[in-house]
Amino acid sequence: MSTLFSFRGGDCGAWRVTRMQTLCGEALPSVERVDISAGNASNEGADWILRGVVSNIRYATGRELNVLKAVQAPIGRLEATRAALIPIRKSTVWWDLAQDERRAIFEDTSHHTAIGLDYLPQIARRLHHGRDLGEPFDFVTLFEYAPAHEAMFDDMLARLRATKEWAFIDREVDIRLDRAAN
Amino acid sequence: MSTLFSFRGGDCGAWRVTRMQTLCGEALPSVERVDISAGNASNEGADWILRGVVSNIRYATGRELNVLKAVQAPIGRLEATRAALIPIRKSTVWWDLAQDERRAIFEDTSHHTAIGLDYLPQIARRLHHGRDLGEPFDFVTLFEYAPAHEAMFDDMLARLRATKEWAFIDREVDIRLDRAAN
Repeated sequence: MSTLFSFRGGDCGAWRVTRMQTLCGEALPSVERVDISAGNASNEGADWILRGVVSNIRYATGRELNVLKAVQAPIGRLEATRAALIPIRKSTVWWDLAQDERRAIFEDTSHHTAIGLDYLPQIARRLHHGRDLGEPFDFVTLFEYAPAHEAMFDDMLARLRATKEWAFIDREVDIRLDRAAN
Repeated sequence: MSTLFSFRGGDCGAWRVTRMQTLCGEALPSVERVDISAGNASNEGADWILRGVVSNIRYATGRELNVLKAVQAPIGRLEATRAALIPIRKSTVWWDLAQDERRAIFEDTSHHTAIGLDYLPQIARRLHHGRDLGEPFDFVTLFEYAPAHEAMFDDMLARLRATKEWAFIDREVDIRLDRAAN
């Protein structure tokens, strides 16, 4: 079974928004807080709500998965007081490609998994799929890291955004978060 | 965007149920009719309702897709007065496999796409994904064919069910339908 998560933008939530930047496509309304919860949260009182499911692996091979599992860190580490929530949408051209064509752009050309590996275990990541739910974004990725690793995280993003895969992204918002003290 | 379809079992609908057979796992309650509609149908008054989205290709390569597109028939042909609705669920073991491991079982070992190709264009097929929606079945496949091709369809199912891929299926119900005259 896939696990649904809700990301609720508004006045409440454990994460304080420190920056919202639209890289591509339509912006999301500015909010002060983001609440992240398992399940289908109500959108009552929210400025926006994004949803996605943690699903099966779509591109990684058995060999890549073994390496990832050996080094990746979980979401929720105490020291990871900073986070980034990055919803993205890919173009129709991308989704109409065959599996081998998408895999070739994802990894063989763009080295998506390989780039991510360079930043483990410091940058924890959880990917949520929204496309089949009819959500406005195809993916919502949550990244968590310690303040000391924010520059490292920005470096990773810059490398990913320079890949051929990113040419298929037609909406992207970068929301930076700080674990709220109150 | 993915397209949602609903399959509503009950007393109403354009398809009359001629047989319901549980091949594996829990049965579905017997019904007289099935209503198939685009969108999220209400389950009020239904004995059961299944949902799934037509989504992107998960295993087929560009070469395989080109062959499929050249010969496949659409859902809704006038002469296709018989149909089969086959909801299936795959095991956790399957979903925990990496992409290359699933692809290898799906095609290189089980020849899923290749077997299906042998029955085109007579057997039309539309695949709906339910797993990421939290549905009880991972997939609902709708097949449509003319009465003269039912034996051919049964032959295709027998070949698919004998594959290694089918060892990962832990729930399967085979619902045969006839386009209702009234």
